[in-house]
Amino acid sequence: MAEAKSYPVYRGVEGTVKQTLTELPALGPKDVLIKITHTGICSSDLAYIPYGVALGHEGVGIVNQIGSMVTQFKVGDRAGGGYHRNSCGHCSYCLSGQDIWCYDRTIFGEKDYSNGTFGEYFVGTETYLHKIPDGLASEHAAPLQCAGATVYTALVDTVKPFERVGIVGIGGLGHLAIQVARKLGAEVVVFSTSRNKEQEARNFGASEFYLLSETEKVTKPVKTLVITGNRYPDWDKFLVKEVVARTGTIVPLAAPEAKMELPAFKMFFDGYNVHSSLVASRGKHNDMLEFCSSHGIVPVVEKFKLNETGIAEAIGKLTSNKMRYGGVLVADKD
Amino acid sequence: MAEAKSYPVYRGVEGTVKQTLTELPALGPKDVLIKITHTGICSSDLAYIPYGVALGHEGVGIVNQIGSMVTQFKVGDRAGGGYHRNSCGHCSYCLSGQDIWCYDRTIFGEKDYSNGTFGEYFVGTETYLHKIPDGLASEHAAPLQCAGATVYTALVDTVKPFERVGIVGIGGLGHLAIQVARKLGAEVVVFSTSRNKEQEARNFGASEFYLLSETEKVTKPVKTLVITGNRYPDWDKFLVKEVVARTGTIVPLAAPEAKMELPAFKMFFDGYNVHSSLVASRGKHNDMLEFCSSHGIVPVVEKFKLNETGIAEAIGKLTSNKMRYGGVLVADKD
Repeated sequence: MAEAKSYPVYRGVEGTVKQTLTELPALGPKDVLIKITHTGICSSDLAYIPYGVALGHEGVGIVNQIGSMVTQFKVGDRAGGGYHRNSCGHCSYCLSGQDIWCYDRTIFGEKDYSNGTFGEYFVGTETYLHKIPDGLASEHAAPLQCAGATVYTALVDTVKPFERVGIVGIGGLGHLAIQVARKLGAEVVVFSTSRNKEQEARNFGASEFYLLSETEKVTKPVKTLVITGNRYPDWDKFLVKEVVARTGTIVPLAAPEAKMELPAFKMFFDGYNVHSSLVASRGKHNDMLEFCSSHGIVPVVEKFKLNETGIAEAIGKLTSNKMRYGGVLVADKD
Repeated sequence: MAEAKSYPVYRGVEGTVKQTLTELPALGPKDVLIKITHTGICSSDLAYIPYGVALGHEGVGIVNQIGSMVTQFKVGDRAGGGYHRNSCGHCSYCLSGQDIWCYDRTIFGEKDYSNGTFGEYFVGTETYLHKIPDGLASEHAAPLQCAGATVYTALVDTVKPFERVGIVGIGGLGHLAIQVARKLGAEVVVFSTSRNKEQEARNFGASEFYLLSETEKVTKPVKTLVITGNRYPDWDKFLVKEVVARTGTIVPLAAPEAKMELPAFKMFFDGYNVHSSLVASRGKHNDMLEFCSSHGIVPVVEKFKLNETGIAEAIGKLTSNKMRYGGVLVADKD
């Protein structure tokens, strides 16, 4: 790949996702060029369609070329990544394993406008890419790069193994959160809008299942409540004795365009906490991949072609709330 | 004290605080009868005036009589307490040093309606009373029983010694929070509505002082933000890069009659947390008394007589926001 070359990436153009060509950049010494084989697609991609940024933040592929100082990857390795693209390396966050919070971070949707995992290639910085354990198929590893990292970090940072954990919502995040929480040793209680997801929730590892409209049926409270999906639940229904226990922790895994309107009096006298969590810092991302591989945690995916038609189909499923559960775009084999 | 005897307590009667007589109960085996010498008075007492409950929850006095199985106190000892009056002793909270969160707890204003520290006597359960270290004067120990316990727990549960801590408000809680935070090793940044408290804030241990209207002047963010006082600040002004750092923790020390309306997007992408804290569990309460004694942490108090007139004067100062900083009612010497 000595000469400059253009390759397709996908981005929002007038409201739909179109293939556009981008120039292959000269690789920096720590850059890794990945030929994408699989990429997750989720609501976060949809949120960036209006901004015209190259989409895709859950990529997996084969290392195609490496910069002069890359030591952890060689051509032919499988690598994944795409949400967290860089951090400064020297601030207190970077130096304490919290690099996702670095103020100079580059994340999907910020700064890196022409590089995305919906594309033929993705250029990653070596230390922001992750080796894919042999036990994980690439189509499963793809949604783990963001959804898996998100639920894993949220759970390991808040849950003690023997505790009861509530998961609100069973979608791309929720179906993984149930599996991870169960394999971490927790008792998993699922809350959903739809009764027809009950059996699957139980298969993923839930021991109890409630509709959001029947929280009063819970008889033993959870200690942590992980909110997946794009809407907050009715806090007054959850912040009561039998649903979330005193000193319990709420972990929202999305940011609705709204205020988080918590009942002040209950928060104070019952000691509820809010813990924020965003994808994963790199160390936890690596741990997550090993954990999923070791415990057989597998996203349930629907596959689409990595082209304009496939992307449009996937978006249709996502926006009509019919994706079960992770959407994966698959590149044509050469 | 063989025969039954009535003694005065103070409670809300038609909107003002009146002396009423209550019967001295027979002491249970673990009960301790304290003759009150000093008691704090704060907004929490005011909140219970309409309910007619015996007021007072920051009492200090001399042990006057002990139940048959009391082993930790003897007649003549100084003892303090009054907010947290009992817990079940066998739930997961009680068994993990979090007894203030026990669902069967008795706290000031709940259950124990004719027993308060605004009175000649206060009846406490042995293990919910605290010995007063010799280094602490009783007039100083009184406000520590609730205000001191509240700020100490909030700070030790959230702050690392070398971190920057923001304290919003300088009143009964705030002026103690500044001292405790500083003595815990933190760098203390104070936010207030009033410039004329700046010098005192600095004397208490603050190294920076800002009006609530000039948060944009902060150049280095705090990691923890402790909210004292009865109103929440404008979250949008605080949850920004230079004021509260990413992954920072908000600790509200009061519950306004309101929603806590947090900006969801900032909470999520900047990783802000909310930590709830209520007075102190007993182990931390004991630690706090030793810590204050050892580090010379002294509440600044205004003294009033423990009678209807003195209480009315103290209430006047509290409601006009003129108390500097802790109100203490002092009993007549026998």
